[in-house]
Amino acid sequence: MEVYSSHISRLIGSLSSLPGVGNKTAQRLAFHILDMPEEDVRKLSESIIDAKLNVRYCKECYTLTDEEVCPICRNPQRDHRVIMVVENSRDLAAYEKTGRFEGVYHVLHGAISPMLGIGPGDIKLKELMTRISETDVEEVIIATNSSLEGETTAMYIAKLLKPVGIKVSRIASGVPVGGDLEYIDEVTLLRALEGRTEL
Amino acid sequence: MEVYSSHISRLIGSLSSLPGVGNKTAQRLAFHILDMPEEDVRKLSESIIDAKLNVRYCKECYTLTDEEVCPICRNPQRDHRVIMVVENSRDLAAYEKTGRFEGVYHVLHGAISPMLGIGPGDIKLKELMTRISETDVEEVIIATNSSLEGETTAMYIAKLLKPVGIKVSRIASGVPVGGDLEYIDEVTLLRALEGRTEL
Repeated sequence: MEVYSSHISRLIGSLSSLPGVGNKTAQRLAFHILDMPEEDVRKLSESIIDAKLNVRYCKECYTLTDEEVCPICRNPQRDHRVIMVVENSRDLAAYEKTGRFEGVYHVLHGAISPMLGIGPGDIKLKELMTRISETDVEEVIIATNSSLEGETTAMYIAKLLKPVGIKVSRIASGVPVGGDLEYIDEVTLLRALEGRTEL
Repeated sequence: MEVYSSHISRLIGSLSSLPGVGNKTAQRLAFHILDMPEEDVRKLSESIIDAKLNVRYCKECYTLTDEEVCPICRNPQRDHRVIMVVENSRDLAAYEKTGRFEGVYHVLHGAISPMLGIGPGDIKLKELMTRISETDVEEVIIATNSSLEGETTAMYIAKLLKPVGIKVSRIASGVPVGGDLEYIDEVTLLRALEGRTEL
């Protein structure tokens, strides 16, 4: 016999399909939702389907947005000649929150990973090349993650852009600010050493 | 400027109102939802509002169900003279999953907590007393949590039921099965000692 009624089971099932949500967490969330005021539950439910139905790729930078062109690409105050290449919209948001980057972005929606069978054709690389060929670009800053996949992607993009004659840079890799050396892995420590700057 | 488009921000906002979901987790969940097939997103969205609109209290045991009387209370095979009192529907589910309890339940929807200002009138205690006075009950097993609130509630119920002349029992408290003594707190160890049984 089912322990929960069918509506509750169905809710628990849906919630546990989310990443990082196991069966126990799904149960906790489900009962919390049942305890919430109906108005709030309706808002939660609607915000989920509304986001899915209304969000699409910006036709310039491919970030997720609800307009044809995202607010960043539409902003004439931004320097459209400097493009920062990131893996996904969350990484864009992370840099955007610093409030100090004046250029625009290009969202790849992934990174090259032979292990997972993700090749250059599976991410928005062709779109980046088209964009560079059509607009006046001075510098491409590669801000993919400092993982094997991110580094592979960075190298690949750098190689692609070399013949085009555009300045290509890579964000620095090293000890995070506030990081305690003794807890930092060796690869990062070596990276920090290699990338040292003169004072 | 908003980093995310309004629909995404609204989704992140709704998700981060859930328990145990901070801003970072909400972002991760939101982007996962945007990546899901539309059909799955629709199911998730609907399961949330459907559960809220269709789930109510069983009119006998007050567990959350989508019918007037829950399947357990409706089941003639269950022993309706033995009532296990639990704090919430999740605790009911936990015992139900053991598959070995043959009686029925009573869900309090909380526990007495002077700290949080939850008194006996705020949980389904009056309903328990009414139910006991109206039906033929042999034993009430108190299975509230082994916390301060759970224990207070257990004592309170035991006191209420004493004059009624019904057998009242409390589930055992002690070392969990598979538990390693050295990692178990002192209070539990003392409880286990007090509650020792002869072999």
